[in-house]
Amino acid sequence: MTDQTRIILLAHGSSDPQWCRTFESLAEPTLEAVPQSVVAYMELSAPSLEQVVSESVHQGFQRFVVLPLFLAAGRHLRKDVPAMIATLEEQYDTTISLAPPIGENPHLGQAIRSVVEDTLEASHG
Amino acid sequence: MTDQTRIILLAHGSSDPQWCRTFESLAEPTLEAVPQSVVAYMELSAPSLEQVVSESVHQGFQRFVVLPLFLAAGRHLRKDVPAMIATLEEQYDTTISLAPPIGENPHLGQAIRSVVEDTLEASHG
Repeated sequence: MTDQTRIILLAHGSSDPQWCRTFESLAEPTLEAVPQSVVAYMELSAPSLEQVVSESVHQGFQRFVVLPLFLAAGRHLRKDVPAMIATLEEQYDTTISLAPPIGENPHLGQAIRSVVEDTLEASHG
Repeated sequence: MTDQTRIILLAHGSSDPQWCRTFESLAEPTLEAVPQSVVAYMELSAPSLEQVVSESVHQGFQRFVVLPLFLAAGRHLRKDVPAMIATLEEQYDTTISLAPPIGENPHLGQAIRSVVEDTLEASHG
């Protein structure tokens, strides 16, 4: 058992390995800084959300926060993911919170501004 | 005429107004800091990429950078958007560069780490 909350960075998933590599790079700073964090995919890629929850429960995690690596909430985050989470909570007798998608956090808007400033600098260089 | 490069933050677009509001908030810090930046949508929402290019050309802009507000490149960014851009370049006799999606820039991974650190702090609070 552990008191730590498992942080699951949830990406959509894709049959394109390059797409997944982009998400692995996006997750890297988090995985390095926060040891109890891990990536999972909603569909099409591994590990799935269920695989990650199952393994983490066996490792002793009792609480989870799913942080969607999505810029905004569409049907997946309003319906599909909450339904998956409800099923997993019952199946594994655990508590899984769904955080807002990363795009709703002000850090993301600041990061976009930094990307634009870099882009402008490069185009003037 | 202007020497400035018009920065177009390109979001996918959605029939859901809440989805668009999330992107407007994401763009806000950029729009405040970079006056020649503007938001456009690939489909389903206004203004479209074509509307923005057309208006900007009339305002005197001759060069554009399209920065996709997408975390990773899928079919839209590999095929649809380059085709739209090629058509607009010919139609408006202008130069439009397509930047990599924001998710390929290291600033985004750092922002995600900050979101996770905020989330952990909140869940311990």
